[in-house]
Amino acid sequence: MYYIGVDLGGTNIAVGIVDENYNIVGKKSVKTISSRPFEEIVHDMAVCIRDILTQYDISEDDVASVGIGAPGSLDTENGIMVYANNFKDGTDIHISEMLRKEFDKPVRIGNDANVAALGEALAGAAKGHKNCVMITLGTGVGGGIIIDGKIYEGYRSAGAEIGHIVLIKGGEKCTCGRYGCWEAYASATALVKQTKAAIDRHPETIMSKSGTVNGRTAFEAARKGDKTGLEVVKNYIEYIGEGLIDIVNVFRPEIIIIGGGICNEGDYLLKPLKEYVNKYAYGGKLNPEQEIVAARLGNDAGIIGAAFNGI
Amino acid sequence: MYYIGVDLGGTNIAVGIVDENYNIVGKKSVKTISSRPFEEIVHDMAVCIRDILTQYDISEDDVASVGIGAPGSLDTENGIMVYANNFKDGTDIHISEMLRKEFDKPVRIGNDANVAALGEALAGAAKGHKNCVMITLGTGVGGGIIIDGKIYEGYRSAGAEIGHIVLIKGGEKCTCGRYGCWEAYASATALVKQTKAAIDRHPETIMSKSGTVNGRTAFEAARKGDKTGLEVVKNYIEYIGEGLIDIVNVFRPEIIIIGGGICNEGDYLLKPLKEYVNKYAYGGKLNPEQEIVAARLGNDAGIIGAAFNGI
Repeated sequence: MYYIGVDLGGTNIAVGIVDENYNIVGKKSVKTISSRPFEEIVHDMAVCIRDILTQYDISEDDVASVGIGAPGSLDTENGIMVYANNFKDGTDIHISEMLRKEFDKPVRIGNDANVAALGEALAGAAKGHKNCVMITLGTGVGGGIIIDGKIYEGYRSAGAEIGHIVLIKGGEKCTCGRYGCWEAYASATALVKQTKAAIDRHPETIMSKSGTVNGRTAFEAARKGDKTGLEVVKNYIEYIGEGLIDIVNVFRPEIIIIGGGICNEGDYLLKPLKEYVNKYAYGGKLNPEQEIVAARLGNDAGIIGAAFNGI
Repeated sequence: MYYIGVDLGGTNIAVGIVDENYNIVGKKSVKTISSRPFEEIVHDMAVCIRDILTQYDISEDDVASVGIGAPGSLDTENGIMVYANNFKDGTDIHISEMLRKEFDKPVRIGNDANVAALGEALAGAAKGHKNCVMITLGTGVGGGIIIDGKIYEGYRSAGAEIGHIVLIKGGEKCTCGRYGCWEAYASATALVKQTKAAIDRHPETIMSKSGTVNGRTAFEAARKGDKTGLEVVKNYIEYIGEGLIDIVNVFRPEIIIIGGGICNEGDYLLKPLKEYVNKYAYGGKLNPEQEIVAARLGNDAGIIGAAFNGI
């Protein structure tokens, strides 16, 4: 049998056919065009699914189910997108029901960060582990919790908002309305902000000449020995580390996966991060050392995880 | 059938016989005398179990199993107390095996805070809920996580240390070695410290005349309208609230239970706490309102939860 995984984003709809061994045998993507009515988006999703099945010569009879990874607040039990600001028409969308009308297979939906975590647990950086937490450092800090091989999403699918644990009570204002969330310090967005502020404070830094500041600027300067760059990176790693220690103390996962562009820094990021986390995690050396690894599957994680969510 | 629950503390060993409906049909306790060899402690535990069975005229054949709630770091899979500072002889104690030699029934161990949470979920304040988190505000901040009706304890039983999530990075030094843990702000110990500091800052407060300062001092003053007392209570409730918001954002439990002496403040504590948590929890009104209640079973929670841990 095959399992269809759909990564529904505000820009693209990526569809993959996944086999029983979690291999993506084929994928295809179409533009979302998020400004149009949702029926049209789902219609194109169905067309894309049928197209790719034809292309890979797979019969609909060999498809067990469809899983969708979607952003926003979801009611996964009833297959409803409660609210997602990525779509013009993103409120109270009965997405599972809509798709079944166009493609008659069981449909399940899951939060995009959650299904990515499941994908990495099944086939990626956490393969072989039944208990793991994945965080993604991007515009925000996304998170997915896998307990006993299944996505943990909390009451009415409203949990696993790991980016919104507090790091500094009353600190930086977060997009969620709270002050001092982890996301406001550890996201790539926050790193850019911290880099810009450091350049303002220390105009002598080589980063002053770097033109556009992005998530790599401070890391590049630090690798060259720039004092300000080193300081920004050190603080940023501590910000990530503090949130990870919370995850360790609460969940004690077998493994933590870190996703997002920042991962490309490899051991330059992961080594000091692991040291910091293991130094302050509860119980010190009495407890097992926390493994922390970079995500491996990129966007494929969402497709594989969506396909096998609930299976 | 009956299930034996044992609450093993540094001062007392409390043993209860629990029936299939989670009723404690009889209980008895003996002194732990934590300075002696652990064999002697376990021997007295077995004697206490047999005594109480005789007293209530229940045959050993009608006992299904024994569950122990114990402090410290445990290896619950193998029934080992890895380390507990409450006992002189508290390192690498094969407690399940020891007890089976004296009382031949299946024995399971669980962390004391975790089994208390399970007890409240089965028969107390969270009865009927399969997903809940309990925190206990005492000397420290203890926590227990119940997911799908079972204790969540993390890899090698080392998780659920909810008191050790960060509230203020780099803040007050915590007993665990980290800086700024929730426990360092929201425990009863922390409240006493905050109350004393407020009295020093504001000698005009009526609390100056209160003699010994304890966890009730600030609440009593606040109820009388004392400005300093009101301020201490307001800040303390925010400290509790910030940690609870983390729990809500990550777990989104159906219900949160609060245990410890502070609970006696009732709605004077719970009402503003609920308001604060629901104001800042992720997603605001889009998500279900978080229920927060006081624990109901007191020490019985640990006995009932220990008895039914893993059943």
